[in-house]
Amino acid sequence: MTNSPKTSAPADILGIGNAIVDVLARTEDDFLIANQLAKGSMRLIDEVEAERLYQAMGPATVISGGSAANTTVGVASLGGKASFIGKVRQDSLGKAFTHDIRAIGVGFDTAHAEEGPATARSFILVTPDGERTMNTYLGACQNLGPADIDPHTVQAAAVTYLEGYLWDPPAAKAAFRKAAELAHAAGRKVSITLSDSFCVDRYRDEFRALITDGTIDILLANEHELKSLYTTSDFDSAVAALRAEGPLTVVTRSEAGSIVIDGASITEVSAEPIERLVDTTGAGDLFAAGFLLGHVRGFDHTRAARLGAIAAAEIIQHIGARPEARLKDLASQSGLTIS
Amino acid sequence: MTNSPKTSAPADILGIGNAIVDVLARTEDDFLIANQLAKGSMRLIDEVEAERLYQAMGPATVISGGSAANTTVGVASLGGKASFIGKVRQDSLGKAFTHDIRAIGVGFDTAHAEEGPATARSFILVTPDGERTMNTYLGACQNLGPADIDPHTVQAAAVTYLEGYLWDPPAAKAAFRKAAELAHAAGRKVSITLSDSFCVDRYRDEFRALITDGTIDILLANEHELKSLYTTSDFDSAVAALRAEGPLTVVTRSEAGSIVIDGASITEVSAEPIERLVDTTGAGDLFAAGFLLGHVRGFDHTRAARLGAIAAAEIIQHIGARPEARLKDLASQSGLTIS
Repeated sequence: MTNSPKTSAPADILGIGNAIVDVLARTEDDFLIANQLAKGSMRLIDEVEAERLYQAMGPATVISGGSAANTTVGVASLGGKASFIGKVRQDSLGKAFTHDIRAIGVGFDTAHAEEGPATARSFILVTPDGERTMNTYLGACQNLGPADIDPHTVQAAAVTYLEGYLWDPPAAKAAFRKAAELAHAAGRKVSITLSDSFCVDRYRDEFRALITDGTIDILLANEHELKSLYTTSDFDSAVAALRAEGPLTVVTRSEAGSIVIDGASITEVSAEPIERLVDTTGAGDLFAAGFLLGHVRGFDHTRAARLGAIAAAEIIQHIGARPEARLKDLASQSGLTIS
Repeated sequence: MTNSPKTSAPADILGIGNAIVDVLARTEDDFLIANQLAKGSMRLIDEVEAERLYQAMGPATVISGGSAANTTVGVASLGGKASFIGKVRQDSLGKAFTHDIRAIGVGFDTAHAEEGPATARSFILVTPDGERTMNTYLGACQNLGPADIDPHTVQAAAVTYLEGYLWDPPAAKAAFRKAAELAHAAGRKVSITLSDSFCVDRYRDEFRALITDGTIDILLANEHELKSLYTTSDFDSAVAALRAEGPLTVVTRSEAGSIVIDGASITEVSAEPIERLVDTTGAGDLFAAGFLLGHVRGFDHTRAARLGAIAAAEIIQHIGARPEARLKDLASQSGLTIS
């Protein structure tokens, strides 16, 4: 309905991440156990396992996804300007991903791969408690590299937001570093989400180095990821370790809300009430959309985290990680106007 | 999760219809007006219009659909045995359709087309009032013909259920007639849904002939379709005309519930209460699933129509025409046990 803006137009948020289409199915816990899947995690799978799992799983709903991509869609739905860099192949899922992200107004001009692996898909199993367990075939995402990082797009975005999952496909890490350097050189901010506690396990030292060397201005994490980062089971210890290192940090704690750590100040914000938890897929991504957009638009931490909570509350009440309602309207109804 | 039974195993319901994947997007009413779309209707579109509309519409959710196919999935979700005959092509959407219907336990063994038009898709625009407006590219459905009607599958089903939309692809009509003859020869029942008031407009005389010549044992229609069938704006006149012709008929009236017309007796049944109307796509299909399964399993008209209402109430509270909850459990909670 909305035309895609050029990604070189000024943006609040540029997201860089794996471009993925989600294939979501409801599942009983027994299925996770029988398939030895760690509930709540994301694991990487190859094409053979992707086919096996698809045949074994129930009827599916197909909705565009990808962590940072979901965040940019959230920003657009909230009334902000967003762009996205990520790699799909020129195939039917790649076409769907491109349509969906552009249709909500996010700029997306990364060249499609014309050969090589298919567009990435994540087989997401949603248990009756609303928890999601993700099985991701990275496919074409493995071809994202530094050449895909358009300097003008990075320079024009107030915040460049990167997903920790970018550490999985090898060439994407170099793209990540290039984007961070370009952003800082242009006086912009760099933000990262730690993505997943298993992802933190895989890249703990590198993620900690990104924090201590000043690459990260704004850190987003949930409490499990933060504990994993500092290899502690005690939340307060993890927070103390983080405060010593300094970036502005938002930690989400599901129904316990979120806390914003800004040097000496700590701000606690409640979760938004919901009617019914259906599917947590995208909760963190949408929280990030609200917080980062609020931050860029000059909201204080409480209001920015509340904007995040409103976006997250919408996404967990239906299947899939893309908003079904116009988040800008939901925010306005709560007195948070994006002008 | 469930293995596909052979379609030659005994079934409660065999559905024969257009095998379609739905591409659903939320839309404002303005978009329907600008595109001259008649709200609530189904129109047929060609490949060029399909591409144009897709580019113009918002972010989409892809879920298997097809009227009679949705009904068979509803029957399986309610705990009944169902099979389906319909034509997809061997392409990515055809694979998704096949996976989804088999994964819930519906038998589906119709040979895939290996060439010719792509698997059918319906671009469904859902307005804020929950009403859906469908734009269907029939594609591979046009290749369904009498050769696809397996006699054993028809003979083994208590009810063969056919969608009125089968009158649109030319060869499917012959398949429809073959199936009806096989069913009656085996002492089975034949049921039809009138599908859509515009569909009734296109084939009124033929549909009336099917009723008067005894082809149809059980008729499903909504009030608009019934009025269109007898070209009257008065519901009571339409009911009177129908009673003179005789088949067991269920007429759905949205939130006003349904009425079952069985010769001299008329049974009125309320709609089930819902929390939130999200998307009416599949409401009639799921009502048919509950009513027909209840009927086959010996429920009286009130209980059969209530089973239909429970299935319809689930489907209209989320996007798409395939159940997200196990309908058998919802029915049990209302005291309607399928044994």
